[in-house]
Amino acid sequence: MSSTDRYQRGWEKLREIDGEVGEQVVQSLHDIAPDFARYLIEFPFGDIYARPGLDLKSREIAVVAALTALGNAAPQLKVHIQGALNVGVSRDEIVETIMQMAVYAGFPAALNGLAAAKEVFARQP
Amino acid sequence: MSSTDRYQRGWEKLREIDGEVGEQVVQSLHDIAPDFARYLIEFPFGDIYARPGLDLKSREIAVVAALTALGNAAPQLKVHIQGALNVGVSRDEIVETIMQMAVYAGFPAALNGLAAAKEVFARQP
Amino acid sequence: MSSTDRYQRGWEKLREIDGEVGEQVVQSLHDIAPDFARYLIEFPFGDIYARPGLDLKSREIAVVAALTALGNAAPQLKVHIQGALNVGVSRDEIVETIMQMAVYAGFPAALNGLAAAKEVFARQP
Amino acid sequence: MSSTDRYQRGWEKLREIDGEVGEQVVQSLHDIAPDFARYLIEFPFGDIYARPGLDLKSREIAVVAALTALGNAAPQLKVHIQGALNVGVSRDEIVETIMQMAVYAGFPAALNGLAAAKEVFARQP
Amino acid sequence: MSSTDRYQRGWEKLREIDGEVGEQVVQSLHDIAPDFARYLIEFPFGDIYARPGLDLKSREIAVVAALTALGNAAPQLKVHIQGALNVGVSRDEIVETIMQMAVYAGFPAALNGLAAAKEVFARQP
Amino acid sequence: MSSTDRYQRGWEKLREIDGEVGEQVVQSLHDIAPDFARYLIEFPFGDIYARPGLDLKSREIAVVAALTALGNAAPQLKVHIQGALNVGVSRDEIVETIMQMAVYAGFPAALNGLAAAKEVFARQP
Repeated sequence: MSSTDRYQRGWEKLREIDGEVGEQVVQSLHDIAPDFARYLIEFPFGDIYARPGLDLKSREIAVVAALTALGNAAPQLKVHIQGALNVGVSRDEIVETIMQMAVYAGFPAALNGLAAAKEVFARQP
Repeated sequence: MSSTDRYQRGWEKLREIDGEVGEQVVQSLHDIAPDFARYLIEFPFGDIYARPGLDLKSREIAVVAALTALGNAAPQLKVHIQGALNVGVSRDEIVETIMQMAVYAGFPAALNGLAAAKEVFARQP
Repeated sequence: MSSTDRYQRGWEKLREIDGEVGEQVVQSLHDIAPDFARYLIEFPFGDIYARPGLDLKSREIAVVAALTALGNAAPQLKVHIQGALNVGVSRDEIVETIMQMAVYAGFPAALNGLAAAKEVFARQP
Repeated sequence: MSSTDRYQRGWEKLREIDGEVGEQVVQSLHDIAPDFARYLIEFPFGDIYARPGLDLKSREIAVVAALTALGNAAPQLKVHIQGALNVGVSRDEIVETIMQMAVYAGFPAALNGLAAAKEVFARQP
Repeated sequence: MSSTDRYQRGWEKLREIDGEVGEQVVQSLHDIAPDFARYLIEFPFGDIYARPGLDLKSREIAVVAALTALGNAAPQLKVHIQGALNVGVSRDEIVETIMQMAVYAGFPAALNGLAAAKEVFARQP
Repeated sequence: MSSTDRYQRGWEKLREIDGEVGEQVVQSLHDIAPDFARYLIEFPFGDIYARPGLDLKSREIAVVAALTALGNAAPQLKVHIQGALNVGVSRDEIVETIMQMAVYAGFPAALNGLAAAKEVFARQP
């Protein structure tokens, strides 16, 4: 498979999951690290998210869980709470996923995750 | 709701998800922190896992993702890889979840998660 | 013990330790995750902080230390620096606790903890 | 104050808190990084632990809390659980401190902290 | 060696690496923890950075890598991106170091590191 | 560029940096996640390490620093301490890099990093 195929497939996945916000992330890299924008499209989206073995809803639940637990990547957590909504995860399922992280990463991680969700949900039409 | 109900419901959830390994964790706490064994049954299992808003398969995907990403709780990651299998997550879905963590927590986190999965899968009949 | 007792006891502990700020945290959860507000009152405050084996001053020193070291939960660190003051930990003891974290989590963690303390102290009458 | 004074004071504090285990840590550095052994004695013990603003019991509670929460420094956590005992923190207070970390860093962190405490307590006469 | 020598040497290293920003950090500690300002000058700068075994460019690459990977110390990461420039690390080398962290700590860590670099570079004349 | 080129280039970089240990990591993935072995070769080694903007010595110093600071990926830290030696970083430079992490991630992180280095150095002929 050629590099162009990976890029094309990754770009479509990025658009499907993250929508305009994903494009803005890519855009923001253009003057500082344009190659990194390409890697971001090719590896996470072109390689990983394009794999058939796990549905996109489960993938977004996994990333919302992980970023809530890590607690040090607020901008990306918000992008993926939006991404979860975009691929059909319900608000309730997102809230349940974040609440569950109180068990694995503590109440502060869950509280900050819920604050991020509240902010993203408020932006929704 | 009485405390007995939470405990009873939590104990059943713990058995459903973690099986004998869950009971061993509880057992190991008896001489050092018996009340913590009770909290472990009541809050994570009696309160959180018993909630209807997210199915158990998704909950186990979330915790495998989070513990892989955190990378500092190998024993609990193994318990929940087994728990994921117990509630119907396939080996492939577990491997996909862990691989995806390379994107959010780096390749070492994913490599160590895959090593944990390999160990748990090898114990299976 | 009934659930109502845990909630009542937790609410009183929350008020004793965190004062109005604790109530605001609970309030902020009402529209997004009301059950999580209840869990927060019941488990950390109704179960853990209500235990007799460790005095509240030591408990607040422990949490200020842990949140300074983790470095990814600034809002909760500030709540507990205030909480430490509320239960009788002196400003000096708080500063000593945070400074000591330079040894266990590095100078950036301690510097950011001191900045949080400075902000909380400045709000005091 | 001369460097010799800091070293001497640090060495005495290290002996008071960590006992023989502390000496073994210093010993283990002799062939790989002898200067680091000196820094370890001078800065954490000669500068920080020697400060009057916080009693040693509170300092050991703070470090047991922080290392339990971080979850990535098992050898040092065990050294300081022993150190806590050495300066007069009771087993119960240590267990309470570790259990409380379930609230701030999740149940796996607390479970692994309790396992470390169990191991250290078992070594005691 | 006397304490004054360490302080003097540390102060010069701090000025060489961090310039005015380093002085501001020290200044900000004066009312809350003046002794910590002294430790910051003496141990990291007077002891560690003054050591001959590793050139300053490599030391700044190491710290930019570590703080990008940890992802929980944005202010200090910016100080050291500036510090890296001050000791002769090129913008390209800084960007490469941060991009490489996507492999070891995930894409969010690298994205947030690149955003910090962008901000620091924009301030440059 | 075709996928074959990335793989080939990545494989050569992996061999250059990690030697036989790198091949063993790849081998260990064959039965559990063969595609992940491919990604590991293609993205970190074929894309990132192959970039011209930062020399391999600096790249290995960066990864030793980051993994020491994170403190939750001991196997990979050892692989890269060996990798650092393979590309010409001296033992002294490795020890300096790890010691410096005491400043940014605390003394336990540095102590565990030094223990890893000691183990790798002892295996050397």
